Amino acid sequence: MRTRRDNKDLAFVEINDGSCLANLQLVIAGDLLSSDAFKAVATGAAVRAVGALEPSEGQGQKWDFRVREIEVVAPSGPDFPLQKKRHSDEYLREIAHLRPRTNKFGAMFRLRSECAFALHSFMRERLFFQVHTPIVTGNDCEGAGELFRVSAAESPAGAGAEGTSPSPGALGPYDAFFGKEATLAVSGQLEAELLAMGLGRVYSFGPAFRAENSNTPRHMAEFWMLEPEAAFFDLADDMSLAEEMVQDVLGFLLENRLRDLELFDRFVSKGLIESLGAIKSRKFARISYKEAIKALSEAKGVKFAFPVHYGADLKTEHERFLSESYARGPVFVHDYPKELKPFYMRLNDDGETVAAMDLLAPRIGELIGGSQREERLDALEARLKELGLRAENYWWYLDSRRWGGAPHAGFGLGFERLLMLISGLGNIRDVIPFPRTPGNLEF
Amino acid sequence: MRTRRDNKDLAFVEINDGSCLANLQLVIAGDLLSSDAFKAVATGAAVRAVGALEPSEGQGQKWDFRVREIEVVAPSGPDFPLQKKRHSDEYLREIAHLRPRTNKFGAMFRLRSECAFALHSFMRERLFFQVHTPIVTGNDCEGAGELFRVSAAESPAGAGAEGTSPSPGALGPYDAFFGKEATLAVSGQLEAELLAMGLGRVYSFGPAFRAENSNTPRHMAEFWMLEPEAAFFDLADDMSLAEEMVQDVLGFLLENRLRDLELFDRFVSKGLIESLGAIKSRKFARISYKEAIKALSEAKGVKFAFPVHYGADLKTEHERFLSESYARGPVFVHDYPKELKPFYMRLNDDGETVAAMDLLAPRIGELIGGSQREERLDALEARLKELGLRAENYWWYLDSRRWGGAPHAGFGLGFERLLMLISGLGNIRDVIPFPRTPGNLEF
Repeated sequence: MRTRRDNKDLAFVEINDGSCLANLQLVIAGDLLSSDAFKAVATGAAVRAVGALEPSEGQGQKWDFRVREIEVVAPSGPDFPLQKKRHSDEYLREIAHLRPRTNKFGAMFRLRSECAFALHSFMRERLFFQVHTPIVTGNDCEGAGELFRVSAAESPAGAGAEGTSPSPGALGPYDAFFGKEATLAVSGQLEAELLAMGLGRVYSFGPAFRAENSNTPRHMAEFWMLEPEAAFFDLADDMSLAEEMVQDVLGFLLENRLRDLELFDRFVSKGLIESLGAIKSRKFARISYKEAIKALSEAKGVKFAFPVHYGADLKTEHERFLSESYARGPVFVHDYPKELKPFYMRLNDDGETVAAMDLLAPRIGELIGGSQREERLDALEARLKELGLRAENYWWYLDSRRWGGAPHAGFGLGFERLLMLISGLGNIRDVIPFPRTPGNLEF
Repeated sequence: MRTRRDNKDLAFVEINDGSCLANLQLVIAGDLLSSDAFKAVATGAAVRAVGALEPSEGQGQKWDFRVREIEVVAPSGPDFPLQKKRHSDEYLREIAHLRPRTNKFGAMFRLRSECAFALHSFMRERLFFQVHTPIVTGNDCEGAGELFRVSAAESPAGAGAEGTSPSPGALGPYDAFFGKEATLAVSGQLEAELLAMGLGRVYSFGPAFRAENSNTPRHMAEFWMLEPEAAFFDLADDMSLAEEMVQDVLGFLLENRLRDLELFDRFVSKGLIESLGAIKSRKFARISYKEAIKALSEAKGVKFAFPVHYGADLKTEHERFLSESYARGPVFVHDYPKELKPFYMRLNDDGETVAAMDLLAPRIGELIGGSQREERLDALEARLKELGLRAENYWWYLDSRRWGGAPHAGFGLGFERLLMLISGLGNIRDVIPFPRTPGNLEF
């Protein structure tokens, strides 16, 4: 039960079953008005009502539900934390167990669900198979950022079961359950590549983890990523797939969940629906990293906190300038200096840049990051050596190049970043039911 | 490239792009036969061929591809580990990075993908929203079995950052990143319940973890689970949903991936397709735990390793007897003694049993476990106390009952168990690309 309005001879009760934004209005009259059952109908309660659906005489709804019997199935009370006023996002984050019962977060999580479904449908139509890549991994993942370690809780502490590995030469902490260092995956890409060499086109959609101790509105320790990987795709194919995917999903949501989107257009980000429509229908720009640096250097009337020069990593301020002011829409930046990117990206013929691409979106910055992968065994081995990475940790990855390693490309889409774009919400903690950030592990 | 057959004037090369079981047959003739490019076409290589699709004159395929040009895009060699003989499942597990390139595992992972999609589609048609519940949790999860602990890898070891919590009174190990004990989720159920109170019907589909140090063909440390949770569902609704879901998915796969299923029918489990058809079309039996114990006690000519009596937990041998011999098909066992089940299941009016159900399937044993949840605040608090669980750890779960906690029910489907049922494969390690079990963390 959401709200009630009591008049002398008539009462109106708005109920909502969570399936959509619209409430159903119950109309109560006669003896029921003074019944104990009806008095107990408080905001937040679950009710069962028997009656008849009738064309409404009131404004704002097509149907009324004229009640014959009413019963409180599960009571609520005046201390129910969600009353009929506007609550701040901060407050609602503290009661994340109740916020799905608000209009805003109900709409948000319906959009999240439909967005996930739209992604699955799009990938399937393009003949991509969904694969489940491991969450707990023993990959060395050198240089992949801060990792979470995993250990079996029952390992006898201090008994050598956890700590430095007992086998000489092995480095890092050791978990007795798996017999080697275990961490939470930062990506499923390397494993998805193996599967793409068998199934042709695959994608994973699962949780990924970063133990970065940073509190920003755009980062979480646990988030969801969609990662396609396709045999015989080059970088241009990769960008086209990313572009068509984003556009397809926006089209799906504009068609299927317009009411929920309208809430965000009205209360969160004015003009949201128009801007989503524009993204959906206009081609995304594609510029090289070199052109991006030029555009940023020549930007008039803008002062960046971090100065740019060829070889510099792009910061959020740069990413937003490129998409919001320069391209005025989502823009791919491609062919980055190899020093800025991981070992697995394909070296271009210039010997200096790699076939990488990032998709930058207004308000969001980086939405997608991808590349054509280095499929040439010798080039890959040379790059590992150059970076001081141990080839023996990547034996299976190198094997996939040793025999029939077809050219291929893929990318990672930050699912929550996409949901920020779709909802207009500015804090990533509000597009996932129970966010995990430093110091936050409630629920 | 899968195989080649060289004749004097004509050669046949089978290629496969991973999208289905069938190969495409390339026909090579003339000068090409003696070219270096064609000589390099070895099993496992990736090739590019230009030519024309023509109606085949040969047996076993409708089309041939008559080749004008051929090129090896990525070479292979005689040391390619997948040669044209039958390899054992054990050997293929050791080269899990290559096994997706075999007929069997290609078919398996296509079935896995389509099975996941079928589940998503079914849930959506039933108006369930997909939710993502947390993987890293701070839930106490007392009594939930062996847990994996999570800690930020960069915490300075031995500096109090990890180890016993510095705050007095708090128990267990402590992670500096989250500020409390962090573990990998064994289930998303409790959080899904919170979301069902807002969205009505929800389901999660994600990874779950058990640090059980047991090597059986039916258990893994990391597996995937689908967990629906629906407001206003009782136990009978819950069983109907489970039954219709399993039947719907089997129907989808029989219709959409019959060729892949035929491989398993032929090489893995004779009669598989017929047995899946029977499960799809026959109503599942429903018997109470009491009836199940009676049936097991009266079983003729069967000797169980574990004797049964009222109050005993059902072992795999019992589960298989009930589904294979007694019900001759999937069977729900419902209303278990409360001592056998977790705290959150709804106490029946007899005060002794809870509204639980398990779906037992032939060959598999337990496929699904679910229950109506205890929605009554006082009953739930009493049960927590009875079991010695600390109510303060469940404040948000109790809150969901405090205000409008509608009756609801849900279940957990072991995705890999379902895939074992579908494929006939007897080892759970063969239905997931990269299995995680004690001592196994490769890839």
